Amino acid sequence: MENYHVLLNKTLEKIKPIDQAYIKLAQKRQNNLTKPPGSLGKLEDISIKLAGIYQKEFYETNPKIVITYGGDHGIYEEGISQQPQAITALHFPNYVKGTCAVGILSSFHNSSVVAVDVGINTDQKLDGVIDRKIRKATSNFAKGPAMSRDEAIQSIAIGIDLANEYFDKGFKVIGLGEMGICNTSPSSAIISVLSGKDPNEVTGLGAGTPSSGLKHKIETIKKGIILNNPDKKDAIDVLAKVGGFEIGAIAGTILGCAANSIPVVLDGFISYAAALLAQSLCPLSVEYMIASHKSAEPASSLALSMLGLQAPLDMEMRLGEGSGAVLMFHIIDAANSIYTNMATFSDSAVPDTGLDTSLNL
Amino acid sequence: MENYHVLLNKTLEKIKPIDQAYIKLAQKRQNNLTKPPGSLGKLEDISIKLAGIYQKEFYETNPKIVITYGGDHGIYEEGISQQPQAITALHFPNYVKGTCAVGILSSFHNSSVVAVDVGINTDQKLDGVIDRKIRKATSNFAKGPAMSRDEAIQSIAIGIDLANEYFDKGFKVIGLGEMGICNTSPSSAIISVLSGKDPNEVTGLGAGTPSSGLKHKIETIKKGIILNNPDKKDAIDVLAKVGGFEIGAIAGTILGCAANSIPVVLDGFISYAAALLAQSLCPLSVEYMIASHKSAEPASSLALSMLGLQAPLDMEMRLGEGSGAVLMFHIIDAANSIYTNMATFSDSAVPDTGLDTSLNL
Repeated sequence: MENYHVLLNKTLEKIKPIDQAYIKLAQKRQNNLTKPPGSLGKLEDISIKLAGIYQKEFYETNPKIVITYGGDHGIYEEGISQQPQAITALHFPNYVKGTCAVGILSSFHNSSVVAVDVGINTDQKLDGVIDRKIRKATSNFAKGPAMSRDEAIQSIAIGIDLANEYFDKGFKVIGLGEMGICNTSPSSAIISVLSGKDPNEVTGLGAGTPSSGLKHKIETIKKGIILNNPDKKDAIDVLAKVGGFEIGAIAGTILGCAANSIPVVLDGFISYAAALLAQSLCPLSVEYMIASHKSAEPASSLALSMLGLQAPLDMEMRLGEGSGAVLMFHIIDAANSIYTNMATFSDSAVPDTGLDTSLNL
Repeated sequence: MENYHVLLNKTLEKIKPIDQAYIKLAQKRQNNLTKPPGSLGKLEDISIKLAGIYQKEFYETNPKIVITYGGDHGIYEEGISQQPQAITALHFPNYVKGTCAVGILSSFHNSSVVAVDVGINTDQKLDGVIDRKIRKATSNFAKGPAMSRDEAIQSIAIGIDLANEYFDKGFKVIGLGEMGICNTSPSSAIISVLSGKDPNEVTGLGAGTPSSGLKHKIETIKKGIILNNPDKKDAIDVLAKVGGFEIGAIAGTILGCAANSIPVVLDGFISYAAALLAQSLCPLSVEYMIASHKSAEPASSLALSMLGLQAPLDMEMRLGEGSGAVLMFHIIDAANSIYTNMATFSDSAVPDTGLDTSLNL
């Protein structure tokens, strides 16, 4: 991989707005399909956005892949989660074995999954996992920065590199996934800094913290933010001081997808934090993002609204892995199927009343 | 078809609660899968409910079919919708031709669609449509009852009969769809009567009414309810006085699915009204219902909460046809795929920490 800083800068420069001419063309086609304009809601929105992203009136949305990143967190030693940190190393290889949620849903959707170790706390080579380890876990951000500025850039560059690799291999849609015991803590810290909201407004239980531990989790995040004082206008500083390696890598993959003009499908809470970093580094990157599900974390709505995105799936899922992103793959294909195959008013007997109206009233 | 009244009574008697022993067995299996219990949210809930419905630990969810009913409405003459009534007859045959939303999404999901005319205002035989016409449109409920009590029972019996037919043919999941210009008006009327809410709280624009026409729509519905004075404790009276033939048929198919112990997937607003009638006729029928999407109509949340159901899809769709139900078919299969194929803690290296916790925190 070329120099990390160069790769990041080159990628940021390459990102351009999605193509408004194709957006208009796709909108026109949607309005000419045999249904009241807008009546298929987000299925229409997605198909139109994809035309702008791919810069084509008709486009292919397959093959698809979920790129998942695993990393451990120094903040674990503060006793926030009751899950042993060792679970990251134990469970992450399952992502590519097809025995866990993201693997099963991915084969169910005929998509692929890769798992990339960017900072798991083990010396072992993990079976089937791509090794891009930066180091074995971030530092404890309650005591100092989670990582150096160089490491933060490195984590983003790894994510860009993977996006480039799978784009070059012909993948048309990339979904995001992750694994890392404690990683809702850096995610809440990032969202707190970028939104300016107090940690108590953006921190939930995740699912490894007992309710009795919420106060301690919030205080730990608050302490880390005060101690490190990240500059909210400098996303790399935020990532370095209170982030995580897998969060940086996800942000990088988002930027890489945007630079290659392909859509990137968010998963849950951790991917929202990464998406906000990507947005901060390059506001245009949001145009390439597709939200999947509303995470069960309380700050989900805030994060999605900062991104200007709406999640079509409301599944009360809080597993991570990429399970929400991969469920969304299907909705993307359904949207494309309608957009491509539905009859137009010109080839149908149904009159176009020209109203923004439903056939059902 | 046997005598309508007998068929309805026999069906109502046949409906029993879903099987709690299989619910417990499925819950136990979900808790033993390699993820924090509950972390897959509604995907878990669906798989557990299906075990109770099918009375099996493992079950087949294919083949699937969407049964759609078309009917016209006398209330059309009040000028509520700007869509010509003729669109019902023109568009309904497209449901089975695969050129409209429900047809395209259905072939995309490898499911089937049938279209049943229960009251379309035409003398023509509609191509590919099953003819069970009661009569050509209901009467105008702003001037008198929409139909007789016998016709109301007939419409329900037709829906039961179709559910029985496709159950006998081996279908494992039935989705609901409809077509009928003006049919959000009877749907709002039914929901108003059953909920006790004023029509202005449960009436939206549907999508055929211009915003300037909302007041007239509400007043027309209110007038019809006052004039006909339906007995909210007698669902058949409500259906007869302010309902529609396709709404009765949908209610019947729900009851038929419940009697045959197979799940029935709701679509949008019109199906909510039918589901509330089915619930009123037999409260246990709700146990067999699976909600799909939140309709864009304002009373959707009220209707779903009266049913005690939550819709996993939030697509801002308001097309009808069955398009939401068929999108949900995929989520059902995804849920079953996870439930069936995911590794259990006993065959995995991942320790079960016994917490209701996420691997992501």
